[in-house]
Amino acid sequence: MKASTFDINGVFVENTASIVGPKEAEGPLSKYFDKSVKDDLLGQKSHELAEIKFHLSTIRYLINKSGHKENDIDLCISGDLLDEISGTSLTMRELDIPFLGAYNACATFAESLITASVFISSGKFSRIICSTSSHFCTAERQYRFPLELGNQRTPLSQWTVTAAGAVMLNDKPAKVAVKRATLGRVIDLGVTDANDMGACMAPAAADTVCRHFAESGLEPDYYDLIATGDLGVAGSELMKVLAEKRGLKLGLNYNDCGAMIFNRVSQDVGQGGSGAACSSSVFSGFIYKKMLNGELKRVLLVPTGALCSKTSTLQGESIPGIAHAVAFEVNV
Amino acid sequence: MKASTFDINGVFVENTASIVGPKEAEGPLSKYFDKSVKDDLLGQKSHELAEIKFHLSTIRYLINKSGHKENDIDLCISGDLLDEISGTSLTMRELDIPFLGAYNACATFAESLITASVFISSGKFSRIICSTSSHFCTAERQYRFPLELGNQRTPLSQWTVTAAGAVMLNDKPAKVAVKRATLGRVIDLGVTDANDMGACMAPAAADTVCRHFAESGLEPDYYDLIATGDLGVAGSELMKVLAEKRGLKLGLNYNDCGAMIFNRVSQDVGQGGSGAACSSSVFSGFIYKKMLNGELKRVLLVPTGALCSKTSTLQGESIPGIAHAVAFEVNV
Repeated sequence: MKASTFDINGVFVENTASIVGPKEAEGPLSKYFDKSVKDDLLGQKSHELAEIKFHLSTIRYLINKSGHKENDIDLCISGDLLDEISGTSLTMRELDIPFLGAYNACATFAESLITASVFISSGKFSRIICSTSSHFCTAERQYRFPLELGNQRTPLSQWTVTAAGAVMLNDKPAKVAVKRATLGRVIDLGVTDANDMGACMAPAAADTVCRHFAESGLEPDYYDLIATGDLGVAGSELMKVLAEKRGLKLGLNYNDCGAMIFNRVSQDVGQGGSGAACSSSVFSGFIYKKMLNGELKRVLLVPTGALCSKTSTLQGESIPGIAHAVAFEVNV
Repeated sequence: MKASTFDINGVFVENTASIVGPKEAEGPLSKYFDKSVKDDLLGQKSHELAEIKFHLSTIRYLINKSGHKENDIDLCISGDLLDEISGTSLTMRELDIPFLGAYNACATFAESLITASVFISSGKFSRIICSTSSHFCTAERQYRFPLELGNQRTPLSQWTVTAAGAVMLNDKPAKVAVKRATLGRVIDLGVTDANDMGACMAPAAADTVCRHFAESGLEPDYYDLIATGDLGVAGSELMKVLAEKRGLKLGLNYNDCGAMIFNRVSQDVGQGGSGAACSSSVFSGFIYKKMLNGELKRVLLVPTGALCSKTSTLQGESIPGIAHAVAFEVNV
């Protein structure tokens, strides 16, 4: 494959927003999220409508807290996990902003950030919102079983994050800049278990991270934090083994947003969090704020996606993965 | 909303490819498609696998006929109508090319062309493939009813095109150039009939086309052809009425890819073709070849998408539409 790592200049994070559900608000990153709700149905008739409300509220909050109006935003590049990204499409009908729908499963946030960064660096766009949502209740019933069945969860399962995260990228200099990116390819090592998303995505994560360092010439300790999106604990360990087989040793600066967002001992979440909003809420909440206060200066975010549908799983297809990497640096 | 029309410089169509099913091969554009097949199952176990084979064969044929290898392609920006664009994801696992998944329903081809054009004009990418697929049998059972039921089709229904279309964009000067684009927003006038896609999408098409002319300062007769994606005959008439209400009168240079691809008198297709591959196969086949031979010099392509899922329809949501416009001109 051609090298797919490239530098990005003149693209900055103007602001972020995150709204999370009750379980996420009980986790270790609680204080970093902008808002949390006590009822994950948000007073709606369905969890799909609740997910739309999460997504719409997060984008509106981001626009408001930044002192803007819808008219100041050039474009939204957004997605979710629902069939036909219908949650995002119905979110966007409430906003008078152009919309491009993205879908790379839980790697969608990376796709959105990279696309927006290239758009801004082209000089044709100034301010773009990148956002994703996910909801435990909509994802479980779509990809696995009706929640009412109360199926026992398998040891390698993960817990879909109920949240929305949104980032406003801009061409005006700000403290945190987008500096480079690596585009991922679809990789399939034959895993067929829709309850073991970490194993489906780890090969793609290892491939993208290894290529990022090979193509950029950087060493892993260049970054204060290398964070995959939602491999969970078991998936992260697998990813480290796969990377080491290719000669890349990841150290203590490697972590996973899915492993970070929940307390596995007390929260009964299997291997940790997952979902399209896992990386977007952890970045918009925890990582961005740690960069603002200077505790993190260089971060490589690698959202990871498992590319399946209920139909492809029922037809016996294995589940390929994809991962894209985006590097953020405190602008000095 | 902010103006969303912008010029594109230095982006050209290097080549196109289209492979269509038997019904499309019997239609009036038959001779313009690169290849057609006699059996729309293509020897596969399921129609989903057949759609993947259409998509993969079209991309591989495009790469081969252009004298390239996978390694020469920077990126694929592609999508389809299947839940989680699983057909495209499984297509991409066979290709060693970076992948960004796009979803704006049947407007996905426009999203892909615009994103690729901005990527190339940023100077970071040279050669990008934009592609979409759709299949009558996968779309009908996903969005409406199992085919085995033999449900009677309603008068306003359309026939999903079975095909894949792919365009290779490049930064090297060629006869046909991408010149400008208008990004669309999500518009919902409250239509709830999933069998009347034309009415769902016409308001978005009218909005994007009206804004294109208002923002570019061009007149409709600047283009030899203004082609919406898949409004069908009734949807196109509705779109013209909506545009005229906003002061834009469309003349004989307006047509619709869905109205063009089938013969409504002899082919029993309701209002005409639809689907994510309707605009991509008609552009890659008919329009591009008419531009190459000089019969068309300036074309505004406006792929149109209906943003629904089976779940959103069953939950009683109305169906919003979106449309993006891309202008191609023969490079003189």
